[in-house]
Amino acid sequence: MTETLLDRHRDRLDAAVAACASRAYFSAFDESPSPRVYGESAAADGKAAFEAWLGREFPLTTPGAVGGVSTERSPFGFDLDVSYPRAVDVDALVSAASAGMRAWRDAGPDGRTGVCLEILSQLHTRIFELANAVQHTSGQAFVMAFQAGGAHALDRALEAIAYAWTEMTRTPATALWEKPGRGEPLRMEKTFTVVPRGVALVIGCNTFPTWNSWPGLFASLVTGNPVVVKPHPAAVLPLAITVQVCQQVLSEAGFDPNLVTLAAEEADDHLAATLAVRPEVRLIDFTGGNAFGDWLEEHARQAVVFTEKAGVNTVVIDSTSDFAAMCQNLAFSFSLYSGQMCTAPQNVYLPAAGVSTEDGVKSPAEVAAGIDAALGRLLGDDARAVELLGGIVSDDVLARLDAASARGDVLVASRTVTHPAYDAATVRTPTLLRLTAEDSDVYEAECFGPVAYLIETGGTEESIALFRDTVQAHGAMTAAVYSTSDDVVADMREAALDAGVALSENLLGGVFVNQSAAYSDFHGTGANPAANASYTDGAYVASRFRVVQSRRHV
Amino acid sequence: MTETLLDRHRDRLDAAVAACASRAYFSAFDESPSPRVYGESAAADGKAAFEAWLGREFPLTTPGAVGGVSTERSPFGFDLDVSYPRAVDVDALVSAASAGMRAWRDAGPDGRTGVCLEILSQLHTRIFELANAVQHTSGQAFVMAFQAGGAHALDRALEAIAYAWTEMTRTPATALWEKPGRGEPLRMEKTFTVVPRGVALVIGCNTFPTWNSWPGLFASLVTGNPVVVKPHPAAVLPLAITVQVCQQVLSEAGFDPNLVTLAAEEADDHLAATLAVRPEVRLIDFTGGNAFGDWLEEHARQAVVFTEKAGVNTVVIDSTSDFAAMCQNLAFSFSLYSGQMCTAPQNVYLPAAGVSTEDGVKSPAEVAAGIDAALGRLLGDDARAVELLGGIVSDDVLARLDAASARGDVLVASRTVTHPAYDAATVRTPTLLRLTAEDSDVYEAECFGPVAYLIETGGTEESIALFRDTVQAHGAMTAAVYSTSDDVVADMREAALDAGVALSENLLGGVFVNQSAAYSDFHGTGANPAANASYTDGAYVASRFRVVQSRRHV
Repeated sequence: MTETLLDRHRDRLDAAVAACASRAYFSAFDESPSPRVYGESAAADGKAAFEAWLGREFPLTTPGAVGGVSTERSPFGFDLDVSYPRAVDVDALVSAASAGMRAWRDAGPDGRTGVCLEILSQLHTRIFELANAVQHTSGQAFVMAFQAGGAHALDRALEAIAYAWTEMTRTPATALWEKPGRGEPLRMEKTFTVVPRGVALVIGCNTFPTWNSWPGLFASLVTGNPVVVKPHPAAVLPLAITVQVCQQVLSEAGFDPNLVTLAAEEADDHLAATLAVRPEVRLIDFTGGNAFGDWLEEHARQAVVFTEKAGVNTVVIDSTSDFAAMCQNLAFSFSLYSGQMCTAPQNVYLPAAGVSTEDGVKSPAEVAAGIDAALGRLLGDDARAVELLGGIVSDDVLARLDAASARGDVLVASRTVTHPAYDAATVRTPTLLRLTAEDSDVYEAECFGPVAYLIETGGTEESIALFRDTVQAHGAMTAAVYSTSDDVVADMREAALDAGVALSENLLGGVFVNQSAAYSDFHGTGANPAANASYTDGAYVASRFRVVQSRRHV
Repeated sequence: MTETLLDRHRDRLDAAVAACASRAYFSAFDESPSPRVYGESAAADGKAAFEAWLGREFPLTTPGAVGGVSTERSPFGFDLDVSYPRAVDVDALVSAASAGMRAWRDAGPDGRTGVCLEILSQLHTRIFELANAVQHTSGQAFVMAFQAGGAHALDRALEAIAYAWTEMTRTPATALWEKPGRGEPLRMEKTFTVVPRGVALVIGCNTFPTWNSWPGLFASLVTGNPVVVKPHPAAVLPLAITVQVCQQVLSEAGFDPNLVTLAAEEADDHLAATLAVRPEVRLIDFTGGNAFGDWLEEHARQAVVFTEKAGVNTVVIDSTSDFAAMCQNLAFSFSLYSGQMCTAPQNVYLPAAGVSTEDGVKSPAEVAAGIDAALGRLLGDDARAVELLGGIVSDDVLARLDAASARGDVLVASRTVTHPAYDAATVRTPTLLRLTAEDSDVYEAECFGPVAYLIETGGTEESIALFRDTVQAHGAMTAAVYSTSDDVVADMREAALDAGVALSENLLGGVFVNQSAAYSDFHGTGANPAANASYTDGAYVASRFRVVQSRRHV
C-alpha cells in the first residue's frame, strides 16, 4: 500500500530532488488560481468549503482535549467562530502521539515518503479552501494566500520531503562488507535502519500558518517522528485542515492517525512552552518572535530546536540605472501584505548626498518622492490596493504603525484603505520615515508591519558597514543592493557573506526581495540571529533521525 | 595550488565517497606495519623520530602562550618530558585562530578539501612516529596504536572529509533560474557560498588521541572553520604532531597556519571550559567522561556540541553453536587494550539456568570457566599478553580495577603482567565478576577499564529487557547478542533499535564487538545517552557550515 504511494508520486519526488541539486526553477503545484488550471468551479467550491466551517466545531479529536476553543477573527472583519478541541492533558496527548511511532518507523523511508507525498496531493485538492482559510487568518489577500499559503507552501513541503528522503536513503538498507585477509576474507552483512528522534512539535505563526509550518511538519514526519501541531490561536483553521488531511491519509495507509495531532489552545494557555520542555519532545520547529524563540533555544535542551525569528531586512541604495523601476520594485516590496513578512525590507540606507541615476543625482527627498509616486500607482485605487496589501493581521501591528510616525520625519504617510468587499477590514498602506545613521536606537529593532526607514548615511561605505554590523547583531532574512558599480556590488556581497544573509542585487523587474523560490532560494541561512535554520538544507533534515545498524557474519 | 592538491588526491576522495554510500569495505591507509608495506626502515625511523622528541620543547608556537607545560608519562613507565606552549591568553589565541578564516572560506570546498587531503597524506608519512606517540600516551600496544591510532584514524578522518565534501558540494556554486511567464521568462543567476560557523574547538581524550579527535578536527576545518585543538594533558604529542603537519601544509598552500592551533595546558587549567563558552567558538567536538560532556551540552549554548561520552556496552548470551569460539571472541574483546575502549563490552547478561550450546547447556559458572580458559590462551604468555593488553592508561583505571573485586564474586581475577621490554609498565589482565539482575547499582554504571560483569538473569527475555532499559537510561556505544534462535536475534534487533545502539550478532571469528570499520560501521548513533553524534553521518557535518546566496537578473 505505502509502496504504491511512492510509486504514484515517484516522478514528482525525483523532479524535486533534481531541482534541489540544480537550484533551477521548479514547481510541482501551479501557482495560478485560474479556472483554466484548476477548473471552473474550483474557486467557488473552495470558498464554499471554507465558509461551511464557519460557526462549527471542526471535526478533529485531539487526545487529552477538554472542551473547545474558538480564537480566530478575520483581519477582513468577522469572527470565524470555528471551534477546535482544547489540548489540556499533555500526558495523554504525548502518549497518543507516540503510540504509532514504531509502525511508522518500520514503514521505512520509502513507505513514509509515499504517505507524505500523498498527503501533499490531497492538500493540493483543497488548495482553494486552504487559501480562504489562510486569507481569513493571516490577512493575506486571496491571490497571495493561494500562492504563498497554497502552491508555494506545498512546494516548500515537497522540498523538505525531498531533502529528507535523500538524506535517509544515502545509507543503504543493507550492505555486504568483505575485508580481504591472509586466508578467507572476513564477510559481514550489515543492516541500517532509520530511527526517529521522538515526538516533534511544530509551533505555527499567524502570518504564514502553512508556508512556515509545513516544512518542519513534513521534515519531521517523513523521518519517522510523530508531530504535534500547535497553531497560533489566531490562525488555527489552515493547520486544522492540514492535520485532518494528514490523519485521513495516515489512516487509509494503515497507520495511527495520531501520528499528526492538532494542539489548539486559548491565547494564554502557554501550551507551546509546556510541550517544548517535555522529555518526549525531541524536535521543535518554531516561527515567530525573538523572545519565545530565544526562550526555546535556551530551555528546550532535550530537543533539537529550529527557529525562524525576526530581523532587520536591509536595502543599500548606492546608484541605479533605472530610477523608476527601482522605486517601483521597492514600493511593491513595502506594500505586499502590508510588509507583514519576515522577508520584507525595513532599513533602506542611502547617501545623504544622494544616489546617482540615469537621470542625474537624486537626493534622499527625491528618492522618497519616487517611492511615494510608485506607491501611488500601486495603491491609488482602493479596489486594487487591497489585493496587494491584504489586511493588518493584529492590533499589535496596527499599534506599531500608529506609534511609528513619532520616530522620524514622515516621508510617506500611511493611509487607511476601505475594502470594497469587507467594510470592517483593517487595511493600511505603508509609511516611510526619514532617519539618519545616528538613529540606531530606532532602525536596529524590527518594526514588523507596514513601516520602512529611509536612513541617510555619510556614503555607501558607511551604508554597507551599518548593514554588516546591524545584521550581525540583530539578524536579517533578506538584504538587497542597488548599484551600477561592480566594486560596490562586490563589497556588498562580501558584507552579506560576513553578515550571513541572502543578497538580492539590482531588482528592477518582476522579482522582489521578499520572495524566495522553493528548490532554488534558501529561506534563512542559520548564519545570523534571525534564524538558526534554513528552508531547506541538509542541516534542516539530517538531525531529525538517526541510523542504527546491526551486523552479522555471512 | 590548492586546486592541484584536490587533483592529486581526487581518486582517494572519490573512493571514500563511494564507500560511504555503499558501506562496503574500504581503506585508504594500509593497517599493516609490515616492512613489505611501509619499507624496511620505516619502523625504526618512526621510533627514532618519536624518541627525538623526548626531553625537548616541541617546535610549535601557540598565540597567547606563556611558558610551557610537560604533562605526559608513558603507561609503559617513563616520562616523555616533551614541553609544549602553555595556552594562557585565550583572547590572543581565539583572535589569531580567526585571522585566516576569510581566506580559508574563499578557498572554497574544493580548495579546502585538497588541503585537508594533503594533510592526511603528510600525516600518513609519519604514521610510525604517530604510532609510537599514541602508544606512549594512551598505553595501547604498538600494533594497535599503529592501526587504531594511525591507519584507522586516517580512514575516519578521510570519511569525515568525504561526508563534508559531499555536503558542501550538493549545492552548486552558481545556478541559472528561469521562471516561465506570460511574456519573457524571469531569469536570474544565483551564487551559493559555503561560509564557516566560526572557531571550532576539539577536545581530545587520553585513550584515542587521534582516532577520536581527527574526525571532528577535519570535519570542522574542511568546512571553513579554524580549529583550536585542546589535547588531554596526558596525550598531547600525537595532536602536537597533528597540528604541526596541519600548519606546515596550510602554510605551503598559502594559508594562515594558525587556522589549526594547539592549546596545551596544565591538568588544572580548565582551558577546555574557558574556551567552550567563548562567543567566537561555534563548534565543539568532545570525547570523554559524562560529567564534562553533559556540562558542555548544558553550558556551551553558543556552539553546536558533538559529544562522545560513556555508556554500558552490553552482551546478551542466549545460546551459541560454537561455545569455544564465543568464549574466545569475548575474551579477546575484554583483553584488547585492557578494555579501555568506549566500545569494550562490560555487561554480559545470561540466564541463570545456563545457555544451550553445541555441547549441551552450560551454566554461568561454565561460561565463566570457558572465558577464563580463553583468556588463559590469549594472555598466558606475558610477552604475547602485553601486545594485546597494552598498558593501564591512568591511576584512575587502576583504582577502579582494584575496587571492582569488592562488588561481586570474582569469577576471573585480574593478574599483573610483567612487560618484557618495559619493566615499569603497568599491565593488568581483565577481571570478570558475577552479578545478578538485582545488582543494578553496580552494572548500570560504566566501570571503564579491564572489568566485565557476568550478570545472571531469569532468562533471555529478562536479559533483553535489562539491555533495553539500561541502554536507554545510561547509553552504550556497542551491543552484542549470541543466539541460535532467529526469534531471539529478532527480539534483540528490535530492542537495539529502541535503545538506539549498534548490534553485533554471533561474532565467532575475526571481528570483535569493540571494532568499527570506517566507511561502513557508524561509531555511535546519537540515539542514546552515550553520544549525541555519530562517526560519520550527514548530521555530523551538515551543521558545521552555512550556505549564503546572492542573486541577480541576467
